[in-house]
Amino acid sequence: MITSVSNPQVKHLQQLAKKAKVRNEEGVFLAEGIKMFREAPKDKIQNVYISKSLYEEKGQAFLDGMEAQVLDDRVFASVSDTKTPQGILCVIRQFRYCMEDILKKDKPLLLALENLQDPGNVGTILRTAEGAGADAVLLSRGCVDMYNPKTIRSTMGSVYRVPFVYTDDLERMLTFLKERGIHIYAAHLKGRRYYDEEDYRCGCAFLIGNEGNGLSERVSACADTLIRIPMEGRVESLNAAVSASILVYEAFRQRLRQ
Amino acid sequence: MITSVSNPQVKHLQQLAKKAKVRNEEGVFLAEGIKMFREAPKDKIQNVYISKSLYEEKGQAFLDGMEAQVLDDRVFASVSDTKTPQGILCVIRQFRYCMEDILKKDKPLLLALENLQDPGNVGTILRTAEGAGADAVLLSRGCVDMYNPKTIRSTMGSVYRVPFVYTDDLERMLTFLKERGIHIYAAHLKGRRYYDEEDYRCGCAFLIGNEGNGLSERVSACADTLIRIPMEGRVESLNAAVSASILVYEAFRQRLRQ
Repeated sequence: MITSVSNPQVKHLQQLAKKAKVRNEEGVFLAEGIKMFREAPKDKIQNVYISKSLYEEKGQAFLDGMEAQVLDDRVFASVSDTKTPQGILCVIRQFRYCMEDILKKDKPLLLALENLQDPGNVGTILRTAEGAGADAVLLSRGCVDMYNPKTIRSTMGSVYRVPFVYTDDLERMLTFLKERGIHIYAAHLKGRRYYDEEDYRCGCAFLIGNEGNGLSERVSACADTLIRIPMEGRVESLNAAVSASILVYEAFRQRLRQ
Repeated sequence: MITSVSNPQVKHLQQLAKKAKVRNEEGVFLAEGIKMFREAPKDKIQNVYISKSLYEEKGQAFLDGMEAQVLDDRVFASVSDTKTPQGILCVIRQFRYCMEDILKKDKPLLLALENLQDPGNVGTILRTAEGAGADAVLLSRGCVDMYNPKTIRSTMGSVYRVPFVYTDDLERMLTFLKERGIHIYAAHLKGRRYYDEEDYRCGCAFLIGNEGNGLSERVSACADTLIRIPMEGRVESLNAAVSASILVYEAFRQRLRQ
């Protein structure tokens, strides 16, 4: 059992929690909590850490054949991202997806995020994307790191299952999608048709802009069609995860009815 | 100008930020940021505090006739809820709504939240409710305080405009709504019909459950109709604000088409 917060493994976990650079260099990320442990693909799990109290409560069977290091509760708290840790933390190998595989699907449903900063929003969008049967989430390099512990937590496990790809050049990526016959929609105040007046049963991608500034002019100019989410009152925009959810669920709704 | 963090007014602002009890005893709350200042109903503003640097940048005209106390930037940071304060903070009188007024509207559209814990979710729901033209948000006493600074921030100003009512007895409140002809819908895994197969152009309310546990049995038993939001993959539930948004926007969509 590890009982010291200055143990090198503990220091290493703290670095993985804090620094995207360290995560990317090692090609791993942290996933915390019982649900995140249970749903993790076994072949992707590199290490498991369990708190003394969880281990004593659940026993060896809980680990389902995985080896784990036991950490003193106080030490576990020092590597946890939550105020009330569940007591289990895994080091998981990062996923690698390529656009070619994603686009093998007939009529894909995609979300493309420009510079989303809030980890909760990005994680929630990945979770909703899985729920709505979307095929992938594309992110501009200016988006928050998907492997940030807060993002991971808000994916509620969808990070294991929904392909996602970062791009240094979102405009070029959108051009590439258009060449492959994918229709690009952007929710925009200048949109002339309501979002529910379009037909999303073709291959399509929805552009979602930054929380404060919305989509940049250059990226929204890449859209084939600007659509509008109606808003009453003095609301100027919706939360980014809410906009994404309304759009991707409208597409899913139409696809279920076809 | 206030230059000391131990100034009594500063101490008082810190108390208002931290403690619901203090806010409720005084019947006020804090609203921070330029948008929150500009959109605040003038007759509800009790005090305004501005940081030295914002005051020097914007001048007296920015305050639009309101009196304000200037705070040293360091002092302002000590009362701010954000890492990079915009430099303006208001003490605003709380709102009082009564169900009778809310129900004067023909065919109201309502959301009822059971024990939502996350300030961001509750604030986002209020914001989306305004966008979708909902008439009010009802909250069980177990929900997070609407006047929590994090909730206020995520309402993006909707807290000034969307009526909301806390209730000690959500079941009794739902019975009261049913007596007034309002149809109660709950998104539930046992729902037999998809959410988009119902007609929401009548007076209706959507029940939204706690982030971790969903709706309690007792509250979901109050629903007239259980509906289902379809979910692909291994998704067991959606984020509470996402579920609320999908439902209230489906109702809004139908109402716009009628």
